[in-house]
This record gives sequence, C-alpha cells and structure tokens, in this order.
Amino acid sequence: MAQLQRSPLAPAGFPVLPAIAGVTLATGNSGIRYKGRDDVLFARFVPGTTVAGLLTRNSMPGAPVTWCRANLARGSAGALVVNAGNANVYTGAAGDRAVEETAAAAAKIAGCVAEDVYVASTGVIGVPLPAEKIAALLPALGNGEGDFEAAAKAICTTDTFPKGASATATIGGDRVTIAGIAKGSGMIQPDMATMLAFVFTDANLPAEVLDSILREANDRSFNAITVDSDTSTSDTLLAFATGRAGNRHVSDPADPLLDEFRAALEAVLVDLAKQVVRDGEGASKFITVQLGGAKDDLSARRIALSIANSPLVKTAIAGEDANWGRIAMAIGKSGEPIRMEAVRITIGGVQIAANGGLDPAYREADVVPHMKGQEIEITVDVGIGDGRATVWTCDLTHGYISINADYRS
Amino acid sequence: MAQLQRSPLAPAGFPVLPAIAGVTLATGNSGIRYKGRDDVLFARFVPGTTVAGLLTRNSMPGAPVTWCRANLARGSAGALVVNAGNANVYTGAAGDRAVEETAAAAAKIAGCVAEDVYVASTGVIGVPLPAEKIAALLPALGNGEGDFEAAAKAICTTDTFPKGASATATIGGDRVTIAGIAKGSGMIQPDMATMLAFVFTDANLPAEVLDSILREANDRSFNAITVDSDTSTSDTLLAFATGRAGNRHVSDPADPLLDEFRAALEAVLVDLAKQVVRDGEGASKFITVQLGGAKDDLSARRIALSIANSPLVKTAIAGEDANWGRIAMAIGKSGEPIRMEAVRITIGGVQIAANGGLDPAYREADVVPHMKGQEIEITVDVGIGDGRATVWTCDLTHGYISINADYRS
Repeated sequence: MAQLQRSPLAPAGFPVLPAIAGVTLATGNSGIRYKGRDDVLFARFVPGTTVAGLLTRNSMPGAPVTWCRANLARGSAGALVVNAGNANVYTGAAGDRAVEETAAAAAKIAGCVAEDVYVASTGVIGVPLPAEKIAALLPALGNGEGDFEAAAKAICTTDTFPKGASATATIGGDRVTIAGIAKGSGMIQPDMATMLAFVFTDANLPAEVLDSILREANDRSFNAITVDSDTSTSDTLLAFATGRAGNRHVSDPADPLLDEFRAALEAVLVDLAKQVVRDGEGASKFITVQLGGAKDDLSARRIALSIANSPLVKTAIAGEDANWGRIAMAIGKSGEPIRMEAVRITIGGVQIAANGGLDPAYREADVVPHMKGQEIEITVDVGIGDGRATVWTCDLTHGYISINADYRS
Repeated sequence: MAQLQRSPLAPAGFPVLPAIAGVTLATGNSGIRYKGRDDVLFARFVPGTTVAGLLTRNSMPGAPVTWCRANLARGSAGALVVNAGNANVYTGAAGDRAVEETAAAAAKIAGCVAEDVYVASTGVIGVPLPAEKIAALLPALGNGEGDFEAAAKAICTTDTFPKGASATATIGGDRVTIAGIAKGSGMIQPDMATMLAFVFTDANLPAEVLDSILREANDRSFNAITVDSDTSTSDTLLAFATGRAGNRHVSDPADPLLDEFRAALEAVLVDLAKQVVRDGEGASKFITVQLGGAKDDLSARRIALSIANSPLVKTAIAGEDANWGRIAMAIGKSGEPIRMEAVRITIGGVQIAANGGLDPAYREADVVPHMKGQEIEITVDVGIGDGRATVWTCDLTHGYISINADYRS
C-alpha cells in the first residue's frame, strides 16, 4: 500500500499529551501486515480501573466488538490490545478464537482475568487474524509510562496523521486529566462511535457514571461526524478511568461535581472527532453544518447529516461552488419536517436563500473567498422549531476515489 | 457547460419507438439556457386522455411538481410541457407564476383548461424561470405525430444519451402500445420516480386504474435504482393514456384482462430506469444487486440500497476489486434484520462468503474476469426469510467527481 500524503487539513503536529497515572502504554510490530512501523498497542491499567464504551451498531460486527460488548457490563478493565491492518471482521469462529487468544496472552502479562482485556482491531475485513503473532509480541513490549503519539500511530491504517487530544478538569477540587487517541479516515459515519477511539483518565469514577457521561459526550462528537456515510463494522470508543487522581467518589452522573469533567471529556471527544474528519479520505475542505429551527434536536441531526452526506453537496464544495440548490435538495430529501418558505441558507456568513427562494441581496462574489478557504461553514434554519445540531464532514474529491478504488491492491 | 462524453454503458442507439395514437409531440429551443439544441417538449393529447403520476417526496419540490400534484386528482390531461436547463425549484412565488404562465399558454393551443396541462422542468435549481420564453415558443411548434427521439433529447441535461423504450400488449384482445422516454443521470435515488419520465399509451384506461398499475410498476423500476442516493426535487413520472386503442373498458386494476398490459408497462419502466443508471454520472460499470432471504421485500430493498449506495462498495467496483468485505459492511449498516452466520455473498456467480466467513473454496482469480466486465452482478442472501429485491446502480468514479465539481461553472 502506497504511503498516503498527509491531509491538507491536518493539524500542525501531534499535541503534547500528559501521562495518565495508572496507565502504561507500549507499542510494537506484529508482522501481520505492516513493515517498518508499529501496528500493535498494548495498554495496561492499575487494578480498580473502570471502563465504559460504545460499539458499532453495524449488524456484521467484528469479533473484537462482540467480545467487548459481552464484557463491558463488568465495568472493570486490566488491559487494552489494539492491532491495525486486520479488522478481524467476518472471520467466523476463527475470529472469536483470535480474540480469546489475544485476551489470554494479555491477561497473563497484565495480571488480570481475560474478560478484563479489551480488544480492538482495524484494517482489512474477512481475512483471518493470526493472533499468535500478537500473543508472541506482547511479552516483548516495554512497561514504561509510554508515549501517546506512538500509541496513536500504532493504531492507524489509511490515516495520514495520528490523532490525540487532552483536557483537565477538577472534580470536587481534585484535578483530573483526560487523554485520548483515535484513528479513522474512511468508512466513517459512526452510528455510535468512530472506528477506534480510546480515552484514558486518572479520574475516580464508577463504571456506570463513566458510561453515562461518555454516551452524552459521544452523541455530540463522534455521532456528529461523517466522511462517507459508511458505518464501520469495528467502530469502538472505550474510556478507561484509573482512579489514581483520588478524587471524591461521585455516584450520580448528574451530580454538578462532574460538570467540569463532563465538559472536558466532551472537548476531548469533539477534538478527536474533528481530527478524524480532517483526515477524511481525500478531504480538501473541512465542513461544519449548523442546523437550526428543526422540530427537535434529532430531526436537526438528520437534516444536517442529509446535507453532510450528499455526494452532490460534497462535490460542489470540492469544486468551490456555493451550490445552495444542492443544499436545498438535501434538506428536502431528508424527509424531516420543514417549512419551505421559511428556510434560510447561509454559507460563510453570507445569506444566500431565504423565504423559499434566493435572497435578492445575494451576490455570488460575496461568498467566493469563503469557498476558496479550507473551512466551510454552512448554516441552515428550517423554520419550524427549536431543534438544533452541528455536524462535521469533509468534501468528496478525486482523492477519495483514488484511495478507495485501490485500497486492497 | 462542456459536452459530456457518451456513457460507456449506453445502448447502441435509440430504439425505434412507435407513434401513439392520440399523442402529438413537438420540440423547440426556448433560448433559456442551451444553444443549438431543443430544450422544450410540447406533447398534446386527444380529449378523454387520462393521466396518472408519481412525484418526488422531496420536501423542497419544484413549482412544477406542486402544480402536477394539485391537478393529478382530476385524472385528465390535455398537454404536457417539459423544459430542460432550469428546474424552477426553490424559486418562490415567481416559480408558481412561471408554471401558471406556461400552462395557460399551452392550454390555449391545446384547447383544454390550464389544469389539464402537465408541466415538468429539469436543470439548475434556484434560478427564476423565464416562462415567457416558453410561452412565446409553443405557438411556433409543429403539430405532427412527432418523434420520440427528438422528444427524449429535448428533455436531457447532463444525460449523455436520450432514453426511450416501448412495448405492446393486448387488453381483451385489443392491441395497445406503450412508449416512454426518460432523462436523468445524477441526483438519482428516486423516492418514487426518477427525475423525469413520461409514458404514453393508446390504451383505454380510467385514471384510477392507470394510477394503480403505474404505482406497482414504478416500485419495481424507478424505485429500484440509485446513482448517488440524492433524491431530486423534480422527480416526476407521468403516464398518459389516450384511449385510442379502443379496448374494452376495465374498471378494476386487478382484472386479469390487464395482466399483459401490467407486464408491458413494467417492462418499459424497467428499461427506462436501467437506462438512467447506464447514464449515471461517471458510470463505468452497471451493477445489479439481487437481495434474497430478507425479512420481507421492503427489508430486502433497504439492504440492497445500502449496498448500492455505499461509496466504498461503488469505488471498489470502479477499481475492479471484488471487495466483499465492504459488501458485508453495507449489509450490516442497513440496520435490517439478518443472520450473520447464514449470510451468503456471490459476485458474478462465484460464491465468496458463506456461513459468516470467507468460502474456503473461493479463489480471487475466479472472479477477476467478471470484475473486469461492464456488468457486475452481486447476489446476497441474508438468511432469515423470503423477502427479495433487485436494485440497479452504477460505480463511483473520478468521472462523477469531475462532472459534479464543475456542473455550474
């Protein structure tokens, strides 16, 4: 597979991420698919670490997704093993055995039960995963605090840059830290999480509380992005809380003591989710769709996704064309309630359409400089209610076709 | 707008279409958008002609769609006016006036009431339609039987070939003839009809009977195709029956006397629908997705459309890659009930996946010749029931991006 060029929308560099007390990270090369780069991430957690997660709703999930789903109710985690290059999806009973073998090998090293080992895989679908190569690698990996940048790189496939984000918050006066990494650039319209994202915190949180906060933050981050409307078979978002910050115990997710942590977690997930879009296959423009005036927030999300997923809207933006007619089409095809004569469409702050037609004051020249930029802002009001949503996506270019017509070859 | 190259999937030539007794066709150039080609079709019908139609469910419909919807309940038609180059969509009150002006001008010539004039427009969205140019053109147009090929050409926009089909049937021993034309190549996932299709027959049929048979045939033709998942604001399918064949009156759409006509109409619509796919923007492969074993036919349709609309599946086929993993992903993301361990995926008659994994007998070399061809057959069984559906689509290529990133410029 040819080395892909770094996305023009990539951030300047990988952020400085703080170590998380209670988490050790190690990476290595399994030899399964990639040469000359690490392709396995092995994270270990101190005893008492809680876990929450969201997994793809795709009904042909990978074996690791099925494994994680079965174990999440336990709420406890001892280790995480991620491999890139082979998704272990649609691999039948052999796929389940590969996960079990991986978990058993990791459990032995981490000193926990196999059910406390979380496993995620990304890459090619339908090819048996030689788990023995992972099992053989794990004992050789180091045991230091580790390096989030190396971890983020080890889980990449067609990604053109590693993705990381962090934030801090206080809970009842105690400072807690959150660090997260993600990967993904195609097959992206998470139905509940992106392809792979892992968040680590030293906060002391019961698994149910972590779960509740994670779901909420996921809804406004990974569930609000789309690259190509294709929902992966491997989408996995896991959050691990080691408790090492020693903050006061909180048992109710709605407790105001958690407000700051909630905001910080959402900020990390939004940051990671946007990075996934910025690495959208072939992306040359980062697009924000802000939808208001819908019946409710869910309806707003659906209309925004209809715009963000429309191949005609995405190609128009690739062509730097403020083709609001296609936006109007995409609003209409969503099937959601709207009031056509009240619909307003604004691009880059320039109102283009209002009252069921072109704004008489609109001059195309006004929006041209915005369309030539890398950050495109589409704001739509559908004129019937208070529902609102923000969705992030990228344009559809020749690069997407090139990457995806050649991926396996 | 540059002349587009004829689709590699185009039929050898326009079929020979029979004249339909009671229908006259004329075409001309309005000067609205195109130079050097006809862009207006004017069809007139003898008194007593019945009509049925299906119109887009897009909630931002064009003014002509709104006009047709309001008048279809009358069941009678005197004329049809179609223009290409301007869709008269999202044009506010001026759009409604443009339709009224067009209908009034046509009614005067056809000798019918304005409400019996059907109007359809296709082309750019959001630009006011200068209906006076159409009104000025109509009186100058001829009055002969007309030429379906010229009619099919006059309604084209980004189409690279005109589309026509015909069939005959008997009703109670009397021979009836059906001829149809269509246009469309992008913004194609009809929610109930393709962009524009018009069918003419000399059959003697009450409007309610025609409507019932048309809906059924539409479901298995235009509702079974997709190019890019974008549902147009102008989708219109109209069928006109002049009654000139003089066949026996039939008042029940389920009457077996109509069996042959029903099959003939479906054949014409399927033929036209497939031609629309063959002219899909940038298409290099014609793809048939046959879905079986679903909960019911609707579920089968949804899964088939999920496969047919997946950008990853479509780009893989463009790259001549039998990437069944992406087909598995698209089955799973549909959200429809399936039994993963019973799913079978066959491409070009070669079984690739079965029992939840790769078929051990599968060799990629076996399917390579099929992938290099222009006609791709994907057959999927999801293993839970008897529901089945067939959907036709095309691949996603650099051509689609080129056409749509440049359309307005």
